[in-house]
Formats: sequence, C-alpha cells, structure tokens
Amino acid sequence: MNAEVIHTPALLPLYTLKDKVVVVIDILRATTTMCVAFETGVNKILPVASPEECLMFKDFDFIIAAERNAVKVEGFDMGNSPFEYENPFLAGKSIAFTTTNGTKAIKKSKAMNPHSILIGSFLNISALCERIVKSEKDLVLLCSGWKDKYNLEDTLFAGAVLDKLKEYYQMPDDAALSAWCLFKQHEQDLESLVRASSHAHRFTLLHLQTDDVKFCLQQDIMKVVPEMQGEYLVNLTPQQAKSFS
Amino acid sequence: MNAEVIHTPALLPLYTLKDKVVVVIDILRATTTMCVAFETGVNKILPVASPEECLMFKDFDFIIAAERNAVKVEGFDMGNSPFEYENPFLAGKSIAFTTTNGTKAIKKSKAMNPHSILIGSFLNISALCERIVKSEKDLVLLCSGWKDKYNLEDTLFAGAVLDKLKEYYQMPDDAALSAWCLFKQHEQDLESLVRASSHAHRFTLLHLQTDDVKFCLQQDIMKVVPEMQGEYLVNLTPQQAKSFS
Repeated sequence: MNAEVIHTPALLPLYTLKDKVVVVIDILRATTTMCVAFETGVNKILPVASPEECLMFKDFDFIIAAERNAVKVEGFDMGNSPFEYENPFLAGKSIAFTTTNGTKAIKKSKAMNPHSILIGSFLNISALCERIVKSEKDLVLLCSGWKDKYNLEDTLFAGAVLDKLKEYYQMPDDAALSAWCLFKQHEQDLESLVRASSHAHRFTLLHLQTDDVKFCLQQDIMKVVPEMQGEYLVNLTPQQAKSFS
Repeated sequence: MNAEVIHTPALLPLYTLKDKVVVVIDILRATTTMCVAFETGVNKILPVASPEECLMFKDFDFIIAAERNAVKVEGFDMGNSPFEYENPFLAGKSIAFTTTNGTKAIKKSKAMNPHSILIGSFLNISALCERIVKSEKDLVLLCSGWKDKYNLEDTLFAGAVLDKLKEYYQMPDDAALSAWCLFKQHEQDLESLVRASSHAHRFTLLHLQTDDVKFCLQQDIMKVVPEMQGEYLVNLTPQQAKSFS
C-alpha cells in the first residue's frame, strides 16, 4: 500500500482521496484537542467552517467552540486548548467546533470523498496506526498547516506515523520521504523542534497560561480514534488489531 | 533580513514577493542547465510557458529547447539535460526554453513583481549566495517542485543556501527551518537522498544515457548567476562580494 503526505490543504487539489484513508493532522492543537474531548467522553463533534455557522448550533443544544489565530473567539463556550476538554462536564455532550486550520482541513477532505477520515495526534498515535493498517487502504496524511502554509509539527507527526507503518506502507512521493526524514532526525527530542516552530512562537507571544506544546507531544496516552461518520466526528469502538505501542 | 522557502509554485499566492530577491530552484534540471548554458557563453535565455509558444521563436533566430515529463519534446533543437548545453556551438546564441516546472516557476514569480529573480543550482551556489547578500533584500527561495508537488532535491538546495546564509538571514517560517534541517541531515551525502527522490526514479525509468543526478550535485564549479532582465535571463558581470566558497 502507498502512503502520501500533503503538507497543506492548499495542495489538496493536486491529489485524489478516492478510496483512501485520510488522517487529518493539526497537532497544535485541533486534532489533539479532539482526541482529548473523546477521551473525556464527548458524544460527537461537528466540525464547522466559520464562527458564524458555529454560533447557530448554540440553539440546538451543542457546546460551541471556536478558535481563530490561536485564541478563543469571544462569545463562545470554549476555545482550542486541550486542557479545556478534560472537563468531565463534557461527557455525553455534543460540540460544534471551528478552528483556524484543523476543521477546515476536515471539511475540505470530506468534500473529496475519501474512504474514511481519521483524526491523528501523538496522544493516540498507536491506536491510529492500528486502525490504518486494518483498513488495508492507501493512506493520505493531511497536514492542516497554518493558513495554508507548511508547518513543522504536523509534518513531524506525519513522519512519526510513516515510521510506525514502514513495514506496511511504501512512500512513493517526496513529501512523505521528507516528513519521515524530519521525524528520524528529531525523534529523540521532538519538543525542541516543535518549540522552534512558528506556531509555538505564536503561543509564547500570547502568554498562554498552559503548556500546550508539552501536552500535545505526549505519546500513546489514549486509545480513541475519532472518525468522520456523516457530518460528525465520533469515537467508534476499537476492534482487535495489531499492536504498535 | 528574512529568508522564506516556498515548496512549490502552487503556494505562491500565499506569499508576497514585492521588494524581495527570488531564487528559482529546479535542481533536476532546468536551473542547473541554465547555469551550464551561461557558462558555455549563451547570450540570453527566454523562458516561455508552452512548447507551442516556444516553437514560434524558431523564426526569430532562437535555438528552441523544450522538455516535458523529463524528455525532449519532438521537433525541438534541445531538451533539458545539462550535458547538451556544454556544446561550444551555443556561445553567443539566444535560447527560447520551456520545461515542465522550472520555466513555469520563473514566469509565475515574475508576474508577482519581485525586486529580482536569480537562478540557483549547486553548480553556482557560492556565487549565488554572494549576490543574495549584496542585495540586502529579504529572500524567497522558490522550489519549482514537480507539477506543483513538493520535491526533495529543490528543498535540499534551499536548505544548503540557508546554511550558507545563516549569519545574514533569519528563518521565521517553518518551511525554511524544515529545508535547513533536511540539508543538515544529508549534507555529507546529498547524492543518496536525491537518488531516492521521485524525479531520480523517473530518470531511471527513462534509461537516460547520462548521469544527470551526479552532474547536478557538483558544487561551486562556476561563477555565473543568471538573472531576469525584462523578459530574458542574462548573466550579469559579477561584482566584488563576500566569498562563500
């Protein structure tokens, strides 16, 4: 089977997703936060394109969450820090969610009719890889980037997934090979590289009270694999699969 | 001063080139071949968008050169292998040139009104870096890629330029930092990485008679720095500059 890496959603039109498994990656922080939400027991997440659209779902018993430019949008229940989603109050709830990059990548790939869309983060990397291998489908690792530009942390994660899957997947394209090289170069110290990234600098400038970078680089602390079913992200029951942890 | 890397021309709309020096990079092989042509003594090169347009210049005393999908287009005088351009017959001649990726990247960046457009290859890397530093302008390293997708060899070269310029330029964007990481990881053996690239595989499948990969990775064998002047690439006389070799 083949694995491709797409560095940013802006390059999606160059690819076909038909009959492939797409993993959407937004390490800092949307896809990490989604994993945390499902681990906490959230029922479903509706990815939406804009804060305006998101706001409408307030009337339909959704928790509404919106982030733009790394900060919570005023008037919303929640932002995009994973720490917010550890709150047990969220168990059983439904969330309408919009972020600068991650939810946009989900919406764009959904429009291209892939076999399935999974949510990836370091938190669930081994469970994710088990699910991918079980699919027996070609794989696309879609980095959400920052406003359609390349980012380091998403590419690094794509490389980490490829490293775990190297017995099962070939890397015929240069973007995949490059992502894998980046991971191998930094696998002993992912944090230093990610702290040098432009998005980590953005956090520093915003004086965030929580250390979201460190949190988002924890590996294999949960087994959830959020997956699109219709318009919603849900957490399907994991089935027996090969172990990657 | 700041240095940015753009992985493919498809991402150009996300950037501004105004008042910046743009280096167009197509290591395998257009920008390497252009350097060889000027070293041979070619007078000027006209980058054109299509073989059809290129053909018109046959009537105006141009040598016409066209490559698509790594092979010479039928009916043209020349293709895109650097070895073809070492022919002394070309001294003083003008060439109309169209290639799959490189000439497209030049045309696209020209339309965005940069301060200047320079042509980069490993063959002229130190002379190129001298010219960049003398400009005292922000820098954009534009990888031509392959049909708008990311490629390894152009990114590797962008990283090599950044490494030479690191005392003069900052790398505020993740694409630049990633290119520099790729170069540092492979600087002792660029050839192995480039031979693993998809474009080198394309050459192998075509059973090319010359070893273009090895040729294109030679460093600092010439001092020419082709530059856009109006519609043409020309080789300006180098002025005194810092030494990077």
